[in-house]
Amino acid sequence: MVVEDVVDKGDKVLLYCDRKKFLITIEPKRILHTHIGMINLEEVIGKRYGDVITTHIGEKAYILRPNLVDYVLNVKRRTQIVYPKDIGIILLLGRIGPGSLVVEGGSGSGAMTGVLAYMVRPNGKVFSYEIRDEFLKIAKRNVKELGVGDYVVFKHKDITKGIDEENVDVVVLDIASPWLVVRHAADALKGGGYFISLSPTIDQVERTVSELRKHNFIDISVFETFIRYWKVKEGESRPLTFMVGHTEFIVFARKVFEIEG
Amino acid sequence: MVVEDVVDKGDKVLLYCDRKKFLITIEPKRILHTHIGMINLEEVIGKRYGDVITTHIGEKAYILRPNLVDYVLNVKRRTQIVYPKDIGIILLLGRIGPGSLVVEGGSGSGAMTGVLAYMVRPNGKVFSYEIRDEFLKIAKRNVKELGVGDYVVFKHKDITKGIDEENVDVVVLDIASPWLVVRHAADALKGGGYFISLSPTIDQVERTVSELRKHNFIDISVFETFIRYWKVKEGESRPLTFMVGHTEFIVFARKVFEIEG
Amino acid sequence: MVVEDVVDKGDKVLLYCDRKKFLITIEPKRILHTHIGMINLEEVIGKRYGDVITTHIGEKAYILRPNLVDYVLNVKRRTQIVYPKDIGIILLLGRIGPGSLVVEGGSGSGAMTGVLAYMVRPNGKVFSYEIRDEFLKIAKRNVKELGVGDYVVFKHKDITKGIDEENVDVVVLDIASPWLVVRHAADALKGGGYFISLSPTIDQVERTVSELRKHNFIDISVFETFIRYWKVKEGESRPLTFMVGHTEFIVFARKVFEIEG
Amino acid sequence: MVVEDVVDKGDKVLLYCDRKKFLITIEPKRILHTHIGMINLEEVIGKRYGDVITTHIGEKAYILRPNLVDYVLNVKRRTQIVYPKDIGIILLLGRIGPGSLVVEGGSGSGAMTGVLAYMVRPNGKVFSYEIRDEFLKIAKRNVKELGVGDYVVFKHKDITKGIDEENVDVVVLDIASPWLVVRHAADALKGGGYFISLSPTIDQVERTVSELRKHNFIDISVFETFIRYWKVKEGESRPLTFMVGHTEFIVFARKVFEIEG
Repeated sequence: MVVEDVVDKGDKVLLYCDRKKFLITIEPKRILHTHIGMINLEEVIGKRYGDVITTHIGEKAYILRPNLVDYVLNVKRRTQIVYPKDIGIILLLGRIGPGSLVVEGGSGSGAMTGVLAYMVRPNGKVFSYEIRDEFLKIAKRNVKELGVGDYVVFKHKDITKGIDEENVDVVVLDIASPWLVVRHAADALKGGGYFISLSPTIDQVERTVSELRKHNFIDISVFETFIRYWKVKEGESRPLTFMVGHTEFIVFARKVFEIEG
Repeated sequence: MVVEDVVDKGDKVLLYCDRKKFLITIEPKRILHTHIGMINLEEVIGKRYGDVITTHIGEKAYILRPNLVDYVLNVKRRTQIVYPKDIGIILLLGRIGPGSLVVEGGSGSGAMTGVLAYMVRPNGKVFSYEIRDEFLKIAKRNVKELGVGDYVVFKHKDITKGIDEENVDVVVLDIASPWLVVRHAADALKGGGYFISLSPTIDQVERTVSELRKHNFIDISVFETFIRYWKVKEGESRPLTFMVGHTEFIVFARKVFEIEG
Repeated sequence: MVVEDVVDKGDKVLLYCDRKKFLITIEPKRILHTHIGMINLEEVIGKRYGDVITTHIGEKAYILRPNLVDYVLNVKRRTQIVYPKDIGIILLLGRIGPGSLVVEGGSGSGAMTGVLAYMVRPNGKVFSYEIRDEFLKIAKRNVKELGVGDYVVFKHKDITKGIDEENVDVVVLDIASPWLVVRHAADALKGGGYFISLSPTIDQVERTVSELRKHNFIDISVFETFIRYWKVKEGESRPLTFMVGHTEFIVFARKVFEIEG
Repeated sequence: MVVEDVVDKGDKVLLYCDRKKFLITIEPKRILHTHIGMINLEEVIGKRYGDVITTHIGEKAYILRPNLVDYVLNVKRRTQIVYPKDIGIILLLGRIGPGSLVVEGGSGSGAMTGVLAYMVRPNGKVFSYEIRDEFLKIAKRNVKELGVGDYVVFKHKDITKGIDEENVDVVVLDIASPWLVVRHAADALKGGGYFISLSPTIDQVERTVSELRKHNFIDISVFETFIRYWKVKEGESRPLTFMVGHTEFIVFARKVFEIEG
């Protein structure tokens, strides 16, 4: 998914057809079936991003560059993904950028893994732990499709049993029992490093926070984020009727060498 | 603000004193006055991130690595900053990472400029337009303090009059009249490139969306984001009483070569 | 829908069947088909509220007293209803209670009409304007089913053309062009009386507020309300994934005899 | 606080002075000090609601009818009040209107007590339990000032020890340990009656829901409500920057004679 100006075989492309989007790999003999007709993917090769092609019934389809929201929302998955609104703030909280060393547990479908890897290029690394075979397979495939496979070290290991790495910048968790990883994160993180964990229930958050308080963590905070879409048109602007009311609570903390109190 | 493991003279450090945070440059002869006593900043030099020092009355102060939220919320400023929750999702929407070419208008206090520059390292660039002298000065200083000055080209120019760059990946706007930049963004952006604009009022959003519809943009969407903090402690967990109820509406669109309809 | 302790023929009853609710009028020969089997409504007669009966396949169905949320959400309708969360705050803003004289435009399906009438008993009155025949018919039927028909005067008239009543306590509007009613409301309201209007779009709100400022209204405020449901169970508590993100904006103002400024 | 058209001695009046509001009892010799000058309250007597008077420096002050939001937000208090947005939806959930028999625990400052009493007139009653002497005194005074003292029976008793009344329509709780009242509420409520409880923490909500499940309650639901204010002016409309992010979680359930399952 490194994005050149012209589409080549094997590229990951976003086709925008009458408000619907299809994130698809361009393969020569493949036909894409949409609600506005069929598209021969071979025809897309050689076109520029931003160009338009027509379906077999003459409807327009736009060739677009997938962004990271497209990637996250469209990865092949067998589990709940982490939402873009949550990944976004995690990047800033974890100071995640080129060069960052990030430990992730678990890989899940690789949606967050891919975004983290995209950001830490070219000299950073994501160490991603996952115990479930089938998820690891999907995550590897998704990360590869984003073109960032070189920046991820997948580990078929249980992160609640320990973290191999030392002196890492960030530990990001999206697992059922994040509190079991707190002491391992305390060992793995640099001084001042960032602990970030996502959980859907308050009980998971309470257990994690309680464990953070027992170890070398300070500045613990918990929050949730929301996104609300609008329909905008002069004289008709209004928020959409439905919204996502909950994804995950986010727990943040900083590792220090000496405990508070 | 490149963060080594040991604090050196000139480093930007976050001092955490009894739940209050001070983002401060370490200068040998400087004394920091806090609510829990004075800190001789000279003593911080040579300490590790994660270490603790004591104030003159014996209270603990933790030496922390500032993250990008610390940076954004604490930049010296003369204008409203863009909030971390909004910058986060913008990164994903704009696919902003190492190598991205981003046009920003205006620089403001440089809070968002700094984060963008941090992300596009080492081979990307941020072209940041600002007409107000005093803001440009502050933005330059803030970006330099984050250690990413090399990745920003500041331009003392009015972005509503035109964009010099071509074939850029993203145009991000945080100005009073973003609709005046839409046609320039259409020229400057690559095919499939991303237009992102922040505005506090619905009227600004309506005008911008209306202009996007007249030019080569599709997949236009508008949203707002929220963040809600919790106090978490077993048996006492509850959201905080007050929250920020509004920052800015975000407008997103993709540039294509041929207009819809 | 006056609720006695024992169910009688003609009563409006809420049947609660395995988390689904049916708001139904008890008629001797009627059979209710539910996802957990059929219920012979004749069997419900003579039962107490709070009693349980069984469906033809032996599943439990509870006989409940409908509350006003059940009424509002289940009225037969041909239009969008006003949501309980919005009606609730309107009652307090309009000081609507026994004895209040309320003008409503338009009746819609009568959901709000019914609640208003329920509250103004026994000595208040709701004057409800509606121009569309088919809505008037539905509203009358719904209000009658709530047992509060005596407290409503339906008027087949266009409220944007004028309000017949004088010296009323509150004017509540849920129509497409509320700004056209502002000057009529100024005439109809008592000194210090309350103007309340619901609109889905910002444009409607702006026009209404602008008109209020030109007439004898002060203390103008605009807000929106939200409700977010939780799943609660020890160790599993979390907000529901989906929520309603928008219903209507509410405009409030007070009528005075002399304009501000 | 029965509101006539002309202000009399002893009336509770809302004075609106340049966007600030003063809820005040009209006493002949009293002077009100405001930020726009002094007002001799004697001058207000005989004026109509909706009239304007001038302060000693010639600024306008409007004489308004307090609504129930004014009452709730301005009661003399020694504790957190229940917010109007929450009371509003409680009225609909509890089908609270003329004739309702409501048990309330505890009285607190009487803000909710007053609204409940206002609604159940003329033939309903509110039985309000409170153990703390000083609160009972304040609650009685506040309810009397709203003119609804005749509809409240205050009880200096601990509601967690038992409820004297039987066959009531609603039990509303705003106390620290609502779960201790669940079995008493099951005894006191009519079949199909409504249990409603407000608590700031998730832990209180979990305990209450868990106890409801053990007793004769079904259709248990939990939610929170929000209100977001806007500044509206053509071309400048936007939500206010700050909002209240949390007041209380609301628990609702219905009493039946036979337990589920």
